[in-house]
Amino acid sequence: MGKPDTINFERLETGFQESGCDALVVASGENILYFSGVPTTSVLGWERIALVVWPREASPTFIVCNVDESLAKAGSWIEDVRSYIEFAQSPIQLLAEVLKERGLYGKTIGVEKRFLTAAQYEEMVSLLPSTEIVACDRALASIRAIKTDEEIRLLREAFNVAEKAIHQGFSEAKVGMTHKTVLDEITARAAAQGADRGRSSFASGDTPPHSEVGAKKLQFGDVIRIDFVGQYNGYYYDIGRTAVVGEPSPEVQDRYHRRWRVQRKVIEFMAPGVRACEVYWRALDAFSEEGLLLAEVGPHIGHCVGIGIHESPLLQPYEEWRLEPNMTFCIEPRYSVPGVGVFHIEDLVRITETGSDVLSDLYDTSELFVIGG
Amino acid sequence: MGKPDTINFERLETGFQESGCDALVVASGENILYFSGVPTTSVLGWERIALVVWPREASPTFIVCNVDESLAKAGSWIEDVRSYIEFAQSPIQLLAEVLKERGLYGKTIGVEKRFLTAAQYEEMVSLLPSTEIVACDRALASIRAIKTDEEIRLLREAFNVAEKAIHQGFSEAKVGMTHKTVLDEITARAAAQGADRGRSSFASGDTPPHSEVGAKKLQFGDVIRIDFVGQYNGYYYDIGRTAVVGEPSPEVQDRYHRRWRVQRKVIEFMAPGVRACEVYWRALDAFSEEGLLLAEVGPHIGHCVGIGIHESPLLQPYEEWRLEPNMTFCIEPRYSVPGVGVFHIEDLVRITETGSDVLSDLYDTSELFVIGG
Repeated sequence: MGKPDTINFERLETGFQESGCDALVVASGENILYFSGVPTTSVLGWERIALVVWPREASPTFIVCNVDESLAKAGSWIEDVRSYIEFAQSPIQLLAEVLKERGLYGKTIGVEKRFLTAAQYEEMVSLLPSTEIVACDRALASIRAIKTDEEIRLLREAFNVAEKAIHQGFSEAKVGMTHKTVLDEITARAAAQGADRGRSSFASGDTPPHSEVGAKKLQFGDVIRIDFVGQYNGYYYDIGRTAVVGEPSPEVQDRYHRRWRVQRKVIEFMAPGVRACEVYWRALDAFSEEGLLLAEVGPHIGHCVGIGIHESPLLQPYEEWRLEPNMTFCIEPRYSVPGVGVFHIEDLVRITETGSDVLSDLYDTSELFVIGG
Repeated sequence: MGKPDTINFERLETGFQESGCDALVVASGENILYFSGVPTTSVLGWERIALVVWPREASPTFIVCNVDESLAKAGSWIEDVRSYIEFAQSPIQLLAEVLKERGLYGKTIGVEKRFLTAAQYEEMVSLLPSTEIVACDRALASIRAIKTDEEIRLLREAFNVAEKAIHQGFSEAKVGMTHKTVLDEITARAAAQGADRGRSSFASGDTPPHSEVGAKKLQFGDVIRIDFVGQYNGYYYDIGRTAVVGEPSPEVQDRYHRRWRVQRKVIEFMAPGVRACEVYWRALDAFSEEGLLLAEVGPHIGHCVGIGIHESPLLQPYEEWRLEPNMTFCIEPRYSVPGVGVFHIEDLVRITETGSDVLSDLYDTSELFVIGG
């Protein structure tokens, strides 16, 4: 296997330059997947930590627990796979040996201080006394934040699979069906395309964001929304759509149109150089411009998405990170009308050289979808 | 709400004595659940860390993210709930304030070094310069390892719910049904009693431990096994049973009896004072005594169980921890016959004052269950 086209090697080099590290040591599940190509969700648990050692000028080494060795060798493009024996040997001890062997003792090593435990970090410091161990979390997030062309293709594909499943599910939904039936049908359609199930929600009325999907039945006039989450070829989709059961009242119609315009205003505002917090405030201003009173203000209005569902930067009021071309965001300003429902629209948006464009664009969302209409 | 009878207060005091800590700071999901009574799996994510500060001589304080505050106040018996504002305030900063306010600045504070990140730990050290911060992971594991009477009651109940579901599912299984149908039926029976779904497996033949449950159909002669995992009233069940479809061959019958005797020998060996590693070696000896050749030797042959599925101590070859009364173990020495199947028996075993007893004892397992028999 050659080097994957889902790693941003240009940004990796920038990461080395800016952090001053001679090697990066990657440990968290998402970063292991990004750099090694091996998904760790089901196989490598907390106690079976995997590590990728990536020296600036040389090829990487993949360290895994012995029970995961065959999996790592079969699944990763990294040729040098080493394993420690579970319970008998410490992964950090093997890490120290690999660093010494590869001439990195005494150099500057970047680690994920927001993931490694205090105990692992202390063990590393004690085994490598004259080595400078620094945090590289931000450098890694900054590499992953800028998607490669292949990643953007995979993300668009994942969202399109999800969009189609929702569209078909909405098209076939009928009064009297339960919420669970409709969501199961949509999930099955995505699964039939090869998607893995995520934690999706489907609700009407005053249900909070991450509730259980119930036996409630679709009734005329219900404003229902789906927040559909899953993975396709290793990339997350996270998409939101709203529909009404039967012809909408003028009030519901009007609220949806205003909410849709908020979405457009936020997306039009997004461009290279804009700070993440400014996008958050732009959303709040847009609600106000559209005359929509917020019953509650969400802690964020969107987030980057990729092999992780909530990647950095988040669009939250304290985030100073500036947007750059090929960042990919889920945009989802929350608008809830007590007693009526949540008007949920969540899109995939890519930052371009000059602005942004919507990649979840298979179907027009400017008009409210009418179920049974 | 009063102090819960699922916390071992006697062992907590021992933990304070042995660790020399003036307060314990608890952070991992399972320990937050144990000490606060609030399950954190779905609501409090990594970035929304919750902390329980437990001073030796006073009542505890529960620190949560502001988005989880109402949940914590409604769900916890701890009266003093404090919250930090997501993104704006650091949980460690609030922790430092609480420690100062409660007169713990400059004292000895135990933290979970195997859970807190290196970044969180460094922040804590920098905010509390003259305070001694030590690891209390082992002390906490040691408190949770010894179950209260109420916990033992809850565990027995959880396993009994699972046993009944398996027994009914096996009783109604028929040749031609798929593995998935049988497992779904068993899972639904446990769910009807209020159990939450875990990651169970159901298989025949040479399927590895944690495989997907497939569309394979039950055929005469199949040796099938279930490893049934879930939660009931917050406590895990993790139980294994084997059955044969139709009358077993003498060879299959014989293998099952030998495997069953291995189980009994291991359980009879378990008693206060015995080291965890010795139980592991006892299992290997028992296989040898019974003339059973191991195609593969598992990394462990059992583990403690409670609100966590894999609690300490594990019965693995390097664990020196000694058994004590009211430890509760899952006992599951793995025995696989290539081409035939895995003869899986997993029981819940409690250590008594003088030995041990089996709590998953609703049905006799000494004879192989015959499906369609």
